[in-house]
Amino acid sequence: MKSYRGVVDAELDRMLPAASSPPVRLHEAMRYSIFSGGKRLRPMLVLMACETCGGNISDALRPACVFEMIHTYSLIHDDLPAMDNDDFRRGNPTCHKKYDEATAILAGDALLTHAFEHLAVSLRPEHILLIAEIARAAGTPGMIGGQAADVEGEKLAPSAGMVEFIHLRKTAALIRQAVRTGATIAGADGATIERCTRYGEEIGVAFQIADDILDIEGTTEQLGKTAGKDTEAGKQTYPAVFGLAESKKMAAARIEQAVEALEPFGDKADLLRMLAKYIIDRKT
Amino acid sequence: MKSYRGVVDAELDRMLPAASSPPVRLHEAMRYSIFSGGKRLRPMLVLMACETCGGNISDALRPACVFEMIHTYSLIHDDLPAMDNDDFRRGNPTCHKKYDEATAILAGDALLTHAFEHLAVSLRPEHILLIAEIARAAGTPGMIGGQAADVEGEKLAPSAGMVEFIHLRKTAALIRQAVRTGATIAGADGATIERCTRYGEEIGVAFQIADDILDIEGTTEQLGKTAGKDTEAGKQTYPAVFGLAESKKMAAARIEQAVEALEPFGDKADLLRMLAKYIIDRKT
Repeated sequence: MKSYRGVVDAELDRMLPAASSPPVRLHEAMRYSIFSGGKRLRPMLVLMACETCGGNISDALRPACVFEMIHTYSLIHDDLPAMDNDDFRRGNPTCHKKYDEATAILAGDALLTHAFEHLAVSLRPEHILLIAEIARAAGTPGMIGGQAADVEGEKLAPSAGMVEFIHLRKTAALIRQAVRTGATIAGADGATIERCTRYGEEIGVAFQIADDILDIEGTTEQLGKTAGKDTEAGKQTYPAVFGLAESKKMAAARIEQAVEALEPFGDKADLLRMLAKYIIDRKT
Repeated sequence: MKSYRGVVDAELDRMLPAASSPPVRLHEAMRYSIFSGGKRLRPMLVLMACETCGGNISDALRPACVFEMIHTYSLIHDDLPAMDNDDFRRGNPTCHKKYDEATAILAGDALLTHAFEHLAVSLRPEHILLIAEIARAAGTPGMIGGQAADVEGEKLAPSAGMVEFIHLRKTAALIRQAVRTGATIAGADGATIERCTRYGEEIGVAFQIADDILDIEGTTEQLGKTAGKDTEAGKQTYPAVFGLAESKKMAAARIEQAVEALEPFGDKADLLRMLAKYIIDRKT
């Protein structure tokens, strides 16, 4: 996993505009947020899915990095005072704390815009519809829709329906799409792509449940962001609806489902299996 | 021009998610900002450039509407308290005033994301690189870079170099790209696309100079946004650098250059000529 992270970070460095070119402050802010930690989970999923499906990892590298740009833009905007109002992320000051709100808004906009530029340049023309798929996963049917529901959900009593709606969109949609993207670039057939999609959705929901649990059981130091904020804000979380013990069981069941979907791949999918387990075992 | 606007508005209505589907408030906010006025200049330019170059207007309609989504997202974010802090736009409360800041940030994000989804679905695969061109025009080499410089420029004394840097990027980049996009969709050759690009850049800069002038000479009622705000904020504007009279001459000279670039088209470019004149004659 470390070697994947190294490859992704080196490529992100090549893809992002130089901090020395104008607008300097904005380019600095984009790089600051991209390079201040991060597990690179989504790019890793694109690369691993591509390899598992027999594709060439070099075809998937730039599209993989695009997922980190989209993910990072969403964190920058979610951390803004008008949204979750977070001062720390990945152990560092959030973008608007390090720079200012205007720069943070524009840096997020720029990362999202940049992401689509790189998709268009790095995908083969016959994969043009993959750009639309990724946009839907990041848009109101997916991530943005989930974030909107997350903000509105603070005013409502936690409910099973609401929290599942949010987690499927806010977190699972982009993670699922990362896996689909790797499989599609590898030229996988429809049934194989569907298996990957299933795997991606299950680990995506499990990832957010694990996040909900870490918000309660983790420390601010471990997490690199303020612990206990979800409970304080009255967020729709799995523990708030089902309790801690049941939430852990539900996350584990999701991972089991995810691993089951990988069965036909045999040992070619071992990395994806390992990653699935990491999702709920992680401490940050 | 009115008939173009009608066609564009009807198509935008079909392209945007229904306000009745969740997330309801977010979809409402997207529609509110798109349908609260607007000249539809950029979509019109895509359509007219496509027609002028002998293309089929129906191939260009959805890409044309995408330019209005990108433009509107940029207005929503620019109007935020952390940026230009505007309460009115197109005669109506700005998105964050009508809804709230979180919704306005997400509605902007969603319109941008939606724009790329529709580009991917409506362009032919062989035009995939047009998506990258549009992203660059909207990104840090273009619109976002110009907006960042615009915000930073408030702290500096107005200068010719700075104001030209800003206007070329903040406003002209997307307008130029609209014209290029229409020509490219029509299948125009390289030289023809270059002529269109030249036209687009000249009217783009002229458009922003005219905006600078209207901020001084127009009334809040006419403009639908607070008049005199640029001067108050110490913005980098043409009148601040060159004075009113000289700025008017410079805008007129840009329009002359733009019209000159259209010469080889003969009377096929009459609509583009008319639009060029409108750019500096308009009162809103």
